[in-house]
Amino acid sequence: MTTAQRPTSEHPRRLVLTLGCPDTTGIVASISGFISDIGGWITEASYHSDESTGWFFTRQAVRIDSPEISIDDVRERFASIAAAIGPDAEWSFTDTAVEKSVVLLVSKDSHCLTDLLSRAERGEFPATIAAVVGNHRDLEELTTRFGVPFHHVPFPADGKAEAFAQVRGIVDGYDPDAIILARFMQILPADLCQAWAGRAINIHHSFLPSFVGARPYHQAFDRGVKLIGATCHYVTADLDAGPIIEQDVSRISHDYTTADMVRQGRDIETLVLSRGVRWHLEDRVLVYGRKTVVFS
Amino acid sequence: MTTAQRPTSEHPRRLVLTLGCPDTTGIVASISGFISDIGGWITEASYHSDESTGWFFTRQAVRIDSPEISIDDVRERFASIAAAIGPDAEWSFTDTAVEKSVVLLVSKDSHCLTDLLSRAERGEFPATIAAVVGNHRDLEELTTRFGVPFHHVPFPADGKAEAFAQVRGIVDGYDPDAIILARFMQILPADLCQAWAGRAINIHHSFLPSFVGARPYHQAFDRGVKLIGATCHYVTADLDAGPIIEQDVSRISHDYTTADMVRQGRDIETLVLSRGVRWHLEDRVLVYGRKTVVFS
Amino acid sequence: MTTAQRPTSEHPRRLVLTLGCPDTTGIVASISGFISDIGGWITEASYHSDESTGWFFTRQAVRIDSPEISIDDVRERFASIAAAIGPDAEWSFTDTAVEKSVVLLVSKDSHCLTDLLSRAERGEFPATIAAVVGNHRDLEELTTRFGVPFHHVPFPADGKAEAFAQVRGIVDGYDPDAIILARFMQILPADLCQAWAGRAINIHHSFLPSFVGARPYHQAFDRGVKLIGATCHYVTADLDAGPIIEQDVSRISHDYTTADMVRQGRDIETLVLSRGVRWHLEDRVLVYGRKTVVFS
Amino acid sequence: MTTAQRPTSEHPRRLVLTLGCPDTTGIVASISGFISDIGGWITEASYHSDESTGWFFTRQAVRIDSPEISIDDVRERFASIAAAIGPDAEWSFTDTAVEKSVVLLVSKDSHCLTDLLSRAERGEFPATIAAVVGNHRDLEELTTRFGVPFHHVPFPADGKAEAFAQVRGIVDGYDPDAIILARFMQILPADLCQAWAGRAINIHHSFLPSFVGARPYHQAFDRGVKLIGATCHYVTADLDAGPIIEQDVSRISHDYTTADMVRQGRDIETLVLSRGVRWHLEDRVLVYGRKTVVFS
Repeated sequence: MTTAQRPTSEHPRRLVLTLGCPDTTGIVASISGFISDIGGWITEASYHSDESTGWFFTRQAVRIDSPEISIDDVRERFASIAAAIGPDAEWSFTDTAVEKSVVLLVSKDSHCLTDLLSRAERGEFPATIAAVVGNHRDLEELTTRFGVPFHHVPFPADGKAEAFAQVRGIVDGYDPDAIILARFMQILPADLCQAWAGRAINIHHSFLPSFVGARPYHQAFDRGVKLIGATCHYVTADLDAGPIIEQDVSRISHDYTTADMVRQGRDIETLVLSRGVRWHLEDRVLVYGRKTVVFS
Repeated sequence: MTTAQRPTSEHPRRLVLTLGCPDTTGIVASISGFISDIGGWITEASYHSDESTGWFFTRQAVRIDSPEISIDDVRERFASIAAAIGPDAEWSFTDTAVEKSVVLLVSKDSHCLTDLLSRAERGEFPATIAAVVGNHRDLEELTTRFGVPFHHVPFPADGKAEAFAQVRGIVDGYDPDAIILARFMQILPADLCQAWAGRAINIHHSFLPSFVGARPYHQAFDRGVKLIGATCHYVTADLDAGPIIEQDVSRISHDYTTADMVRQGRDIETLVLSRGVRWHLEDRVLVYGRKTVVFS
Repeated sequence: MTTAQRPTSEHPRRLVLTLGCPDTTGIVASISGFISDIGGWITEASYHSDESTGWFFTRQAVRIDSPEISIDDVRERFASIAAAIGPDAEWSFTDTAVEKSVVLLVSKDSHCLTDLLSRAERGEFPATIAAVVGNHRDLEELTTRFGVPFHHVPFPADGKAEAFAQVRGIVDGYDPDAIILARFMQILPADLCQAWAGRAINIHHSFLPSFVGARPYHQAFDRGVKLIGATCHYVTADLDAGPIIEQDVSRISHDYTTADMVRQGRDIETLVLSRGVRWHLEDRVLVYGRKTVVFS
Repeated sequence: MTTAQRPTSEHPRRLVLTLGCPDTTGIVASISGFISDIGGWITEASYHSDESTGWFFTRQAVRIDSPEISIDDVRERFASIAAAIGPDAEWSFTDTAVEKSVVLLVSKDSHCLTDLLSRAERGEFPATIAAVVGNHRDLEELTTRFGVPFHHVPFPADGKAEAFAQVRGIVDGYDPDAIILARFMQILPADLCQAWAGRAINIHHSFLPSFVGARPYHQAFDRGVKLIGATCHYVTADLDAGPIIEQDVSRISHDYTTADMVRQGRDIETLVLSRGVRWHLEDRVLVYGRKTVVFS
């Protein structure tokens, strides 16, 4: 589904390496030697040594001036470097000239949808929004205004399994790099969590792990907290407990009703989700266990 | 224990009314009429109508230019106004010229203690720190540097009840307006929570209700959150679940160890606690149920 | 141009009083007595006594349960109260059931426009966006997607005066409650600043007073600041120096290019502008001299 | 003046390399090869390629397990690597086991002084505070409470040059790694700015470049800004215009007097200064031109 993306001055072509492996001496020397060998120029380099697990993580963005070098060649050549680093090394090498695609799952709330469509339209993401799937028709007209196809999949109380099967068929047809639950109010079944592991991203309208589950603003109101928050995380079979990509909060006061929280919360939700989505699409998020390294 | 405080240009004398009652028409008219009648001048007025409970809350700071008016007179005269407002009205009238006093409970961590002693010394609080009680001697020397008496009460594993009885005796001897648990690592027994209800204030080093109990930074590390926080709340018999006065957070990243969190967390803890303590001492915090109205 | 707005549970009908006057005793008693007299119920009340000028400011939102009371009656009855308060009192009484209207001035940048159109569409503002005027056609299609009329007024270098006259004609035809310069890149002439005083609102992409004028992100880059900001302010003849309604900032780091600042800055600009616009439309902003009181 | 510091589990021994040079391929490979050669283990690595100047910057923290390797050996061996990287390369290699020292310049305000003394006492900085110099005696007693020598140097209006000469003599006697102007109200003469270039750090109580010079909170009050700030920067001969290390802001409202700003501003000033000082002492700040790279 991906198509060639024309690099622009705002989004110049970069090869992006991400790598995680048990830490040992010489890894950085190997990688930087390799990049130097292929005539690459490191424009961004980030490293993290995790003391608690003994793992090492890196992300490197590489400028390549010779356009004839293909990402497939680079991957083939890097494979032997990675093998020398160790058998457990996990890595990817991507080319920002290859555009990614995204599918959004929505329900009735429009704020995250509008925000993501707008950002994609003005080129903030290195991706196109290929389609939107909604369990209601409320957001169909809004979606099509932006020239994006909308698929309606009803979720009857006694037919959720079939509905999810249908959603899966539609989504997988686009082979997307990310499936974004943009205030989708249905809980993904375990098989979908598994099939979309590392690609399905949710926005939860609380500062997790506080206020898991339904109606978090009502929970926040009842508890009398002084800040509300939002959390962008990878979806796992464990509800609202997947690896956190990004979080933020916003101050409220005693005179906020839950309706006020809902209104103000929209701004935090859209910001947090859009950051998480961009970082995911730019290969800035490395998952390990239930946590993430984010080289933002 | 309280002594006359000389009002200064930075802390001019004010009479402070706080009132909470079932909402009805005419309350504000009654109060402002009263203040006008006694020749008072409202310098700060805050109101809150809580839709979910139907209660009304107000705080008003009043300048009185005639020094002969005493707070006792004012209270006596206001009692009939309050009675007319309704039998459930809860109110207080205080005089900032009467200095308040505070007792701190500490253990080994110095950051909140130093911060509170420093702020008190430079006059940020309308109160004096009357004494510090520690379950270790670690902070004795620091406390006495600021000219404040330190009481050491050991907490042997098999003698906590006796230790708390001793603490209670010391604290109650000062009759303080606030008992601050400034990183005191002992859980107050139910009878003390009861005796000091509305006066005992704790700082918990997480964004509650996340990470209740022991070692919250370790819990935060394990969960992989992207912000750490601190919560200042009134102490109740329900651990870390009392009415929240103030909270704040601070951004961390994947490269923070728990030691880094502990270091950075100190800054949030001291800020959040000092704000909560100041607002409490300035009669800006009204408790209702498990929540607070904070007229900051 | 305004039409009757149907109050909803999210936006119930309120009468909103704002008043500023030289401070004296008895003002609050007069106002609250009046509101009590007309059977009103204060749902929000805010006060501010400005020590430096000796002025007093208040905003009160009043619930009226008898629908037959008209805002014109209320104004007529309040006029005598205001006269008794003093000859310099400035006040307004508005009815949230009367919908307000807004006209936007834009150029080529879409982020503030999309954000304001989306918020208006989902009912966050007590106003409709009546029209958009652009000095380029770039945003015409986007505007019309939201069902809002777009007026194109070219700004040739040698014909700006005529262009502004044309803009004025269009805008004044809508008699709007607010004229929002949503990244409009033209400087309003003095006569328009005068004609639209207190209704024209601009968003400047810096934390004013830093970086007045053109290309503030480039100025910020050159100075090496660690935070970028945005400022929403009333337009006056003095460039970027009008009364500030709202400001906010966002952290950057040494690796931000000006393009990165532009991208991240969009989020701050949209948030700051949308807050300022909402507060203005809800009669929460009182201007005095070159400053504002914001009862948010 | 520096003495051997015993590395602890919280502050383990690290060799820290900082390097800036015109960007070219192979720099990272050279450095990481070198570190690998000496048996070092990179625990933190940060890189920045500045597109506008074409310079490259890096900071690397290196664990060395063989205690017999001395920092002098490392420097000698790295010199040839640096020479190969290019003649303009600027670099330093420091050993965290060698403790640094700091001298503070103060006047009458105690908040930054108390904060820095407390942090140093609890080991937050890899440095000792060797001495405090004050142009008044107000803070002498506070300083000596922390066991730090205090030098009083009066600044008569007609004898400032002599006073500064005396300050210089005292400060240079300690040969400090940092000279902190902790709310020192005197403007350093050009010769001292020159002599202490890259070591003298000031805290200014505004969000620079706004409100340069005297009484910034009064300037902020007059302008009606909605946030106040503080800026930590290196001192240069150009007043309040040196390279910025850190900034932060804090929200205020229309009801803040300048006294309220002064009180709240203290918290921002202490936080911003303490962060800047720590980063400087940990060799995280690289200056280029009038800007800084901060590898925090």
